[in-house]
Formats: sequence, C-alpha cells, structure tokens
Amino acid sequence: MAQAISIQKLLDEFERLPGIGPKSAQRIVYWLLNANEESAQRLASAIVEVKETVHFCPRCFNYAEGEFCAICTDERRDQSLLMVVSEPRDITAIERTHEFSGLYHVLGGAISPIDGIGPDDLHVKELLERLANTEIQEVILATNPNVEGETTATYLARLIKPLGIKASRLASGLPVGGDLEFADEVTLGRAIESRREL
Amino acid sequence: MAQAISIQKLLDEFERLPGIGPKSAQRIVYWLLNANEESAQRLASAIVEVKETVHFCPRCFNYAEGEFCAICTDERRDQSLLMVVSEPRDITAIERTHEFSGLYHVLGGAISPIDGIGPDDLHVKELLERLANTEIQEVILATNPNVEGETTATYLARLIKPLGIKASRLASGLPVGGDLEFADEVTLGRAIESRREL
Repeated sequence: MAQAISIQKLLDEFERLPGIGPKSAQRIVYWLLNANEESAQRLASAIVEVKETVHFCPRCFNYAEGEFCAICTDERRDQSLLMVVSEPRDITAIERTHEFSGLYHVLGGAISPIDGIGPDDLHVKELLERLANTEIQEVILATNPNVEGETTATYLARLIKPLGIKASRLASGLPVGGDLEFADEVTLGRAIESRREL
Repeated sequence: MAQAISIQKLLDEFERLPGIGPKSAQRIVYWLLNANEESAQRLASAIVEVKETVHFCPRCFNYAEGEFCAICTDERRDQSLLMVVSEPRDITAIERTHEFSGLYHVLGGAISPIDGIGPDDLHVKELLERLANTEIQEVILATNPNVEGETTATYLARLIKPLGIKASRLASGLPVGGDLEFADEVTLGRAIESRREL
C-alpha cells in the first residue's frame, strides 16, 4: 500500500462528512499535512470542545453552552414574540436577517406521517407549556414552506389560537433579486395571492 | 450573539480548510453536532494522529510513518526505475493507475524563478546522491506538464543523462475518453506531434 495508514484513516473520516467527496478529502488532508502542528491541533480541539460543551437548551432546544442558550438568556430580546422553527440551524438563518428580536422554540423536526414523525416526536408539549406560563402574545410558525412544514404549522396554529395567542406564518413569494421568468408556478401563484397594495 | 462560542470557533476552523466555504462549514458543523460523541472523537483523533505519526521519508521525501515510507520499504518494487514527482500527492495519483512499480523521489516543488524557487530549494542534491549509489537505470521525470514542471524536467535531464542513466518524461496528449473538439490547442498540438504508428 502506497498510503500511510494514518493518512488513509483521516481521508476516510473526512469522506464521511456531508458534502466532502474523495477529491475534497484528499485536498484537505494534504493541506493538514503541510499545515503547522498548532493549526491542525486547533481543528481537532474545536471538534472535541463542541461535543463536550454544546447541549440542547432545556427551554427552547437551541444549541446552548451555558444552562440556557444565548438567546434565552439575553434579556433584551422581546419576550412577547416567539418563533417556532424545525432545527437549530434555522435560528442561524433568521438571526442573520437582523429582522427578529423575539425568542425561539425548536421543534426538532416536522410532522411527517411517511417518516413516522408525529407531534409526540417533536417538542410540541414543551411549546404548549411555555405558552401557558409566559407573556407570549404572538407565535410565528417558521417551519419550512414544504408539505411537512405546512402540516406542522397548520397543526400548531390549531392548538395555539384557542389559547388567545396570535399565530402567524412567514410570507411566501418571489425571492428578492430573483427573476419572475424563472420562478416556479407554486411560488408565483403564492406571490399573486399574497400581493401587497401599494 | 445567537451562536454558541464553541460552534462559531469550529465553523471558523472548518472555513480555513481548502474548498470549504461558509455553507459547507455550517453543514459539517451541524452534522457533527448531531453525530454521536465517538464519531466526532474519531475525526479529531485522526487529525492529531496524522500530525504525530506522519513525517517525510528521509530517502524519497514521500510521507512516511515508519523510518522509511511504505514504497521505499517494499522490496517487491522495481529498484531500477525511479519516478521524480513534485509533491507526495502526485504519488497517490500515479499509484492509482497500477502502471508503475518502481520507486519515487519527491522534489517538494518545481523550479520557478518568478516564485524564487531554484534547484537548491528542491530535493535535487538528494536525488543525485541516490543516483550515484543505487542500481537505478531509468528516471521518469513526472513533474507537471506546465512551464515550471517542464523547466524542472529539462534541468534534471541535463544532470541525469551524463551519469549514463536514461531520463524520460510522461507523454502529453489527448485525455482518454475526452473529446477532440474540446481539447485545447497546445494539448492537441502535442498529441499530433507525438502520434503513434498503428
């Protein structure tokens, strides 16, 4: 065998990561072989550290390092507004917009009868407990705009509205900067339906 | 800040790797967060291990784990044939072809006056020492088919031939399975020039 065993082992480990094929893995491994000791050590330590320190926030199920996550502990956030998302990564996307200053609740997925995922497999019970005990006035249902996400949003809206809490959904429409010509018909239909008066 | 500090740190570390942009880094980090402890630990350990165990073979400058590299220690390899390459990664590419069973010599680059890289910055002295002391009958100069690679090959051939050792170069021509129509003119010109009689 031409390849050192530890190089092959590292190649295998990188190839298991999402979006990394054999060529990318090889490029990274050769980069690491040429990198200084400290640089490689930093990557290895960061991986270990993330697994040691990151857990789920017991309140909103976002990733957290302290007892609660950075958003739950931030008192400047609007405590009356709650956004429900499927995964912690959706929070990152929303935070990037700087358009939302409320709190979050991560479901940990979406209702999908085909995959055998029902409301009991998601953090729905915990959501209802939060709504019963807090000053939340509006819940934005920000699950994905696909079948599972829509089903989940509809299901949750039916539970939330009887509590006297407003339930809303992110708008669907044409992507900003997009081209009308290339929009799919469902998105375009939704954009017409939800047109704004000027 | 919405992101846990250790997550941001790991994102930064992955983004420093070649070919990994912010989106890929995020995908990998979320994958690791969902992966089991052992799986993440394996990746971290493989990185540390590669830096601890891999060094350069003192004979051919390939990556090695033992005293010498796996190819230098393999007695079944043809000791009369030596292939000169720029980087250890070139050995991986050649080995994949299963067409070469000789030994290698890694230069650690190619002659490039623009980048200030001359013969003294490469393992040329060590190559000449090997050629003086061993039974090598032919040296295949497998540096890249670009300006630096050609310059290096020409330079080395001038040193090797006076020793009574054959110097050869990998053939240039059309890639197998390629399309004549899409070949660049230099490659196509080279293919005409080096045409084989049938």
